[in-house]
Amino acid sequence: MRALVYHGPGRKSWEEVADPRVQQDTDAVVQVDAVTICGTDLHILKGDVPAVTDGRILGHEAVGTVVEVGAGVKNVRVGDRVLVSCITACGRCRFCRGGHYGQCVGGGGWILGHRIDGTQAEYVRVPFADNSTYPVPAGVSDDQVLMLADILPTGYEVGALNGAVRPADTVAVVGVGPIGLAAILGAKLFTPSQVVAIDLAAGRLEAAKQFGADVVVNSSREDPVAELMRLTDGLGADVAIEAVGIPETFELCTRLIRPGGRVANIGVHGKPATLHLEELWSKNITITTGLVDTYSTPTLLGLVAAHQIDSARLVTHHFALGEFMQAYEVFARAGETGALKVVLNR
Amino acid sequence: MRALVYHGPGRKSWEEVADPRVQQDTDAVVQVDAVTICGTDLHILKGDVPAVTDGRILGHEAVGTVVEVGAGVKNVRVGDRVLVSCITACGRCRFCRGGHYGQCVGGGGWILGHRIDGTQAEYVRVPFADNSTYPVPAGVSDDQVLMLADILPTGYEVGALNGAVRPADTVAVVGVGPIGLAAILGAKLFTPSQVVAIDLAAGRLEAAKQFGADVVVNSSREDPVAELMRLTDGLGADVAIEAVGIPETFELCTRLIRPGGRVANIGVHGKPATLHLEELWSKNITITTGLVDTYSTPTLLGLVAAHQIDSARLVTHHFALGEFMQAYEVFARAGETGALKVVLNR
Repeated sequence: MRALVYHGPGRKSWEEVADPRVQQDTDAVVQVDAVTICGTDLHILKGDVPAVTDGRILGHEAVGTVVEVGAGVKNVRVGDRVLVSCITACGRCRFCRGGHYGQCVGGGGWILGHRIDGTQAEYVRVPFADNSTYPVPAGVSDDQVLMLADILPTGYEVGALNGAVRPADTVAVVGVGPIGLAAILGAKLFTPSQVVAIDLAAGRLEAAKQFGADVVVNSSREDPVAELMRLTDGLGADVAIEAVGIPETFELCTRLIRPGGRVANIGVHGKPATLHLEELWSKNITITTGLVDTYSTPTLLGLVAAHQIDSARLVTHHFALGEFMQAYEVFARAGETGALKVVLNR
Repeated sequence: MRALVYHGPGRKSWEEVADPRVQQDTDAVVQVDAVTICGTDLHILKGDVPAVTDGRILGHEAVGTVVEVGAGVKNVRVGDRVLVSCITACGRCRFCRGGHYGQCVGGGGWILGHRIDGTQAEYVRVPFADNSTYPVPAGVSDDQVLMLADILPTGYEVGALNGAVRPADTVAVVGVGPIGLAAILGAKLFTPSQVVAIDLAAGRLEAAKQFGADVVVNSSREDPVAELMRLTDGLGADVAIEAVGIPETFELCTRLIRPGGRVANIGVHGKPATLHLEELWSKNITITTGLVDTYSTPTLLGLVAAHQIDSARLVTHHFALGEFMQAYEVFARAGETGALKVVLNR
């Protein structure tokens, strides 16, 4: 088959590799019908994720058709159309049994396109298939469900749920790339009074408006703290969601919130941040971090099937699988191309 | 009357001052029958709390007898024996109406011995008396109830409740001065599997054992992270409670907890800490900060009255009111004197 293979920092190619096969009786092999590229893949290509080594097939999101299952797989059968989640779950370890699949210590967690070969290929082997795939309901498109492999549960669980967004809250979302937009979609499910999108890029702020932001703040021109205070009678936001992953935006979030407010960090960080405990110790704040668990995937599938979330609007570009190199180019230059999520179809 | 008056950094005296009187119709004046000294008072005397100015009577904890009430006071009457809480609550602002009395923006919050004259005196004026005092049940001693003015609700709310201690948890308490001990008392209410006390001082660790710590770690000799990992099969603590207030101990807490664990900061910090988001972003941790609200005071009064918490064991020394200067000396030199809480009685 052909696959997108990582060959060290800055090097990747769409090339011929061996077909994957069932290795454990809990594996499934899935034909990839639709697959996308994540910001994390760009981090990997910069060399930021040293666990990813030369020869690794990238990708941790897909929708596809089951073509082979191990003898122990009960939930899916050959021919089933399934979502391949970014999180693989053994289903049996301490963390999985508590619903904390992202922290799986039984051989799962984020492994696809990381510690084992991933989804940016014609076929992918999915370990622990019973707990790592979801049958796709009829009437839901590939684009719709593909956004549930990572980005939508991440915005919902790590942003909206960890941030404990409640009706009438003021929610600040710092960074409105695809993950920030997914966080807006997640937050809007809780009927906040206002969602304030903060970013440096006018294009992303325009997209944030389309996704439901009530106010946008261009932090290259406006002081977001002053703006939040103005919008909240000097109180601050109830919730700030960090969707960038640098110390400055995290620290900004801690200044945007009111006493008793919550900072939900989604961003993938490479450096420490400064936590101003000399100001925050008495403010009753809550800070959360998180890798997505995907425990919300069934909930989100239901919302998409019922047309209560329009996940497909995150998709801006389509390519054929053979056009992976171009797709990466368009996704990596999102500032020029306006790309949110790019989808590659079989 | 006589009172303990702050005269700038390092200077205080027990001196004659004017008697307090009711100023607002929601005030009460309380005769102080028992009063204590808080670690925060020592911070003030070092000059660390600039809002406290020359001439201020210190103290924010007392048990006493109501001697005068304003016309609008409904809950307490002259002659009532009451707990004067460290937190004064207007009862009407946005925060008070949500139970967040510590964040009161209607003129309350922590004001006694801070922004207005406090309890280290023969009499004290208590604003918003209906929401800032609690009638003391019969059969509860002054020592027992005095510990509910600040230290016990702080350990319970900001430590155990913010840390969401649950049955079978491993709870690490970093710093076992009086507040850390109160946090242990609070945590024990939730039947943790083990409470691990961490401190540099052998005397404090000995006290921690008396208060229910199952394991003590002397961090001057042992690596507390290695010890916690050993005690939890390499997993880490479910909850770490910070009860010191310096960057090192806060950062230690973030290394003591397991994936999905919680850090509850109680410590009063004067400097920022480093938050290692490059390690923590994916670990699903929760960090909380808090000034006590005292919403738990009725709960704790009930537990004390029912002998389910032995709060009086925090009291190690007794003095007469006129011995305030000596009491401060004994409290400030706790390392030598073994003082936990010192109580001064009328």
